Amino acid sequence: MDYEAFFDSEIAGLHREGRYRVFTDLERQAGRYPYATHHSPAGEREVTVWCSNDYLGMGQHPAVVGAMHEAIERCGAGAGGTRNISGTNHYHVLLEQELADLHGKEAALIFSSGYVSNWAALGTLGSKLPGCVIFSDEGNHASMIEGIRSSRAERQIFRHNDPEDLNRKLSLIEPGRAKLVAFESVYSMDGDIAPIDEICDVAEAHGALTYLDEVHAVGLYGARGGGISERMGLAHRLDVIEGTLGKAFAVHGGYITGSNRLCDFVRSFASGFIFTTSLPPAVAAGAAASIRHLKGSGVERARHQERVAKVRQALDAAGIPVLANRSHIVPVMVGDPVLCKAISDSLLDEFGIYVQPINYPTVPRGTERLRITPSPLHSNADIDHLVDALSTIWSRIGLSRQAAE
Amino acid sequence: MDYEAFFDSEIAGLHREGRYRVFTDLERQAGRYPYATHHSPAGEREVTVWCSNDYLGMGQHPAVVGAMHEAIERCGAGAGGTRNISGTNHYHVLLEQELADLHGKEAALIFSSGYVSNWAALGTLGSKLPGCVIFSDEGNHASMIEGIRSSRAERQIFRHNDPEDLNRKLSLIEPGRAKLVAFESVYSMDGDIAPIDEICDVAEAHGALTYLDEVHAVGLYGARGGGISERMGLAHRLDVIEGTLGKAFAVHGGYITGSNRLCDFVRSFASGFIFTTSLPPAVAAGAAASIRHLKGSGVERARHQERVAKVRQALDAAGIPVLANRSHIVPVMVGDPVLCKAISDSLLDEFGIYVQPINYPTVPRGTERLRITPSPLHSNADIDHLVDALSTIWSRIGLSRQAAE
Repeated sequence: MDYEAFFDSEIAGLHREGRYRVFTDLERQAGRYPYATHHSPAGEREVTVWCSNDYLGMGQHPAVVGAMHEAIERCGAGAGGTRNISGTNHYHVLLEQELADLHGKEAALIFSSGYVSNWAALGTLGSKLPGCVIFSDEGNHASMIEGIRSSRAERQIFRHNDPEDLNRKLSLIEPGRAKLVAFESVYSMDGDIAPIDEICDVAEAHGALTYLDEVHAVGLYGARGGGISERMGLAHRLDVIEGTLGKAFAVHGGYITGSNRLCDFVRSFASGFIFTTSLPPAVAAGAAASIRHLKGSGVERARHQERVAKVRQALDAAGIPVLANRSHIVPVMVGDPVLCKAISDSLLDEFGIYVQPINYPTVPRGTERLRITPSPLHSNADIDHLVDALSTIWSRIGLSRQAAE
Repeated sequence: MDYEAFFDSEIAGLHREGRYRVFTDLERQAGRYPYATHHSPAGEREVTVWCSNDYLGMGQHPAVVGAMHEAIERCGAGAGGTRNISGTNHYHVLLEQELADLHGKEAALIFSSGYVSNWAALGTLGSKLPGCVIFSDEGNHASMIEGIRSSRAERQIFRHNDPEDLNRKLSLIEPGRAKLVAFESVYSMDGDIAPIDEICDVAEAHGALTYLDEVHAVGLYGARGGGISERMGLAHRLDVIEGTLGKAFAVHGGYITGSNRLCDFVRSFASGFIFTTSLPPAVAAGAAASIRHLKGSGVERARHQERVAKVRQALDAAGIPVLANRSHIVPVMVGDPVLCKAISDSLLDEFGIYVQPINYPTVPRGTERLRITPSPLHSNADIDHLVDALSTIWSRIGLSRQAAE
């Protein structure tokens, strides 16, 4: 077996399909977001970042940065162990209290990442709950899919955001079995929002646990940043609310919140929680500061929504095809991987605008896109520059425009 | 289905077996390692930590702490995205270069944690390599076991550190199939060391890839801290060397190193690498600084080994039963989960010494232990205090002593 030749041919396949990923080497500039330095083979150059998940620019907020500095001064660099073996730092304890409070739950549990939180929590619940069937929205994130797969529980995939289909599928399962409904509030790539209330109604009628991924919503929606479930007054109806510390909260890590017993259960049985070094104290401190700030301040959320509306309006006026949704995610649809990468390259090289092309398997083939994420810190001039650049490229390549809605 | 009652009864089972985990809420004190503040229900109190995986105390090293502060000042808190979507920071690129150089490999790839690096790399290699059979040492860490399980590749478990058994098992597999031998250099709980050269001989004879987990060795062994594979001059014989940034390097994260093609392959296909927010720039910067320092300085390693020898000697002289091994890990064997926890509680409450009890499933039942990890920063007085405390408890409980070797 020639391993190198095998790797080579697999990589060549990605090149052929136009979906080989080239990472853009950036140096973020604290205090100057959304601008960053692009380290390219041709040298260093300033670019405007239009595709970050630091949705609110909290990564440079003085409260967050200050809390990280302070924790490093007090506790040093890393945690030094797993949560059980010398790696529970007081900052972890405080962060878990902050998160439980954010979602109005009894307890919270933090993980290395949002990915790991989904993988470990769903994997553990699905494998340990007796006879468990997991009902998974067909649009769920890779981390949920991997967690469900890893659990080896029976899996039923229901149609995207479709409570009726969920109801049909739940009706076919014996009443006595454990059931869990796993879904997201804001779907990352299309930006559409789940009918959480209807899904909870259906789940409740069938005695199923509800597991909601709010990674693209925490910090961004709700009076205190508790996500779509908070905005809709539904947090109490969800057994698990899962979130990330790495997007709007702008630091790193993931978590679940739920009842004391549920969190203690996952804490006690999840391999991916137990056998891994805990987050650095500074990461926990920074995340807690970010959450705390966004609980008390709605300014960032209001400005964020205003900027999103403005970007949409400008793109609509220019006839650039945008997928309609009610969230902060602005997908400019291209529909071809090679073209999508070419547009992204032009934006970067000619206009100093960085928007990564999103290709398969992140989105289905034929729906390749530029996923634009406006922040409160993008100026009117930034928006004009983005829309002018896209318009220029659209004309040059002869792409079709869509009539303003 | 009463979910809460189910969680309750599972947790009760852990209590009954004496293996319910109570996390010790610590506040590390930068500059004062191995001392930390214990936040207990009874109040705050200073303790000496004797079970950290910050093996060299690098978590408080000025070079590491300074690099983290600087990166926060320059780039802010988090990375802001996945590696592909705006989350590749220049510090990640530099860290990967540092790691490839550490192990003399063409390339490196960083992950959220050592756990994730094993899970994602083994899962991807095992699932994608045609007809792959993975040969796994029976002592392998949970993260490797989960990765292999997740790959759904055929798995063959060979006897711990036994190249002959590996050879027998490899001989039974058709020559044309892809094969991968996964093992560790230093096993975390027993502290024993693999016969890397013999395992490489066997793997090579059968055309198998070799995958070595060096998480408990990097920074600690070898002229530049490249681990046991460096010390034995064998790094070039391993296809993958996996390591962590969270133990001797004292920050957070994990990695693999290998050929350009192998790393590019894992980078391109591993769900757990692709769909997750990358490490904060400050974590990457701190880790790179730690690696760089330990490449150039052997002082910490020498002092570490000297302290380990001194602790062993003192425990032997007192007749406290220690599992013999040639690494830095000093397992004091107890053999009962309830007793193990009671000794640990006494050490903490009466003597201000923190050593977490290690129970099943981290170690096999009947081999429960106190896993002691001396650091270069534990003083003679700290060692005397530890051994006196253990001796007092040993006498009081009437545990058997072992004759000094």
